[in-house]
Amino acid sequence: MRVIVPFDARGPKTRLSTLLDYDDRNEFARAMLRDVVSVVQDTGRDPLVLSSAPIEFENCPVLVDERSLSRAVNERLRAASSAVAVVMADLPLITDAALERLLTREEDVVLARGIGGGTNALVSRTTDFAVDYHGTSYLDHRSTALEIGATLAEIDSYRLAVDIDEPDDLVEVLLHGESRATQWLRDRGFRLASGTGRTTVRRTDVTHEPSQ
Amino acid sequence: MRVIVPFDARGPKTRLSTLLDYDDRNEFARAMLRDVVSVVQDTGRDPLVLSSAPIEFENCPVLVDERSLSRAVNERLRAASSAVAVVMADLPLITDAALERLLTREEDVVLARGIGGGTNALVSRTTDFAVDYHGTSYLDHRSTALEIGATLAEIDSYRLAVDIDEPDDLVEVLLHGESRATQWLRDRGFRLASGTGRTTVRRTDVTHEPSQ
Repeated sequence: MRVIVPFDARGPKTRLSTLLDYDDRNEFARAMLRDVVSVVQDTGRDPLVLSSAPIEFENCPVLVDERSLSRAVNERLRAASSAVAVVMADLPLITDAALERLLTREEDVVLARGIGGGTNALVSRTTDFAVDYHGTSYLDHRSTALEIGATLAEIDSYRLAVDIDEPDDLVEVLLHGESRATQWLRDRGFRLASGTGRTTVRRTDVTHEPSQ
Repeated sequence: MRVIVPFDARGPKTRLSTLLDYDDRNEFARAMLRDVVSVVQDTGRDPLVLSSAPIEFENCPVLVDERSLSRAVNERLRAASSAVAVVMADLPLITDAALERLLTREEDVVLARGIGGGTNALVSRTTDFAVDYHGTSYLDHRSTALEIGATLAEIDSYRLAVDIDEPDDLVEVLLHGESRATQWLRDRGFRLASGTGRTTVRRTDVTHEPSQ
């Protein structure tokens, strides 16, 4: 199965700018992209990175499409002759098992929600289905599936629900991640900080720490 | 299987105080408790509410234990002669299917993580296992299971991961909930608000809206 991994190569992850500067955000976004592409390959599927601008990436094919995310994805869905998956590039907690749960369902449309209302991963087996990633896209995608008469499955996965947009999301990466993005954060000095309320992240001085 | 549902009856959900006053927080916490107890009963298990103070609750047995959460739960785990589950009372997105995934595993210890590092639900089949809900309890519980030589399963569930502590958590309830707690929020005028970034909640004037 073809698995499209959309990637925002133009100033990604701006909501992390309180913690990471421009270059760091680019590096971190690419570490997450490599994590997602690796997991797709581990499950035996073919990833295709759909990038909003040219990038250097050697792990799998890259297609550059400068239009909006929804337009770029919809063109691929319309042109598909078989099932297509779309998995976001900012899911560093994704595992083979979580992705398999999505990819092995047989319904026409399979959706995995993101925290905050997004659609972090989906499978479409019908050219009638189209995406619109604006706003609370999960509810819209569910409605669309029902309107076109498609069978629908919803995947209940924490690992697919955690996309990385806000500083608090880094807590989840440090708690439950084991891949490149987690290691990248640790190397940059990010640590869990417990106090009253939920756990947060803090950044320590890593000047004298050896890179692991 | 006995399913313990710990409930903080003394000033619950203080981190929602920017949105809800004391009486509202109490009502909302009880709506969530009823949701969780109902789902436990729907799966054919026996819920026992373990409350930190006396409460009026007619849906299932209530045991009052004024000690800390961890001490109260550990006493029940030690005294158990068979498998015991502990499911938090602030999981309004819980469904039969999500709970079944937890309860039907056969490992000695089964854990479901909460966002921010907590342990939102667990099953223990060994009296050697003990809880400590302080801090990032999920990692501690996983370590404890390994230290005592227990077999361990980790449940990857969004619906079990979303506990309700912070205002942003209400977004998830409005997006994906269908139960008493969701209806309670809607009746109080809470609505989804989309803008730049993630979806948030806003509260509308419900003075002239009929209660549904």
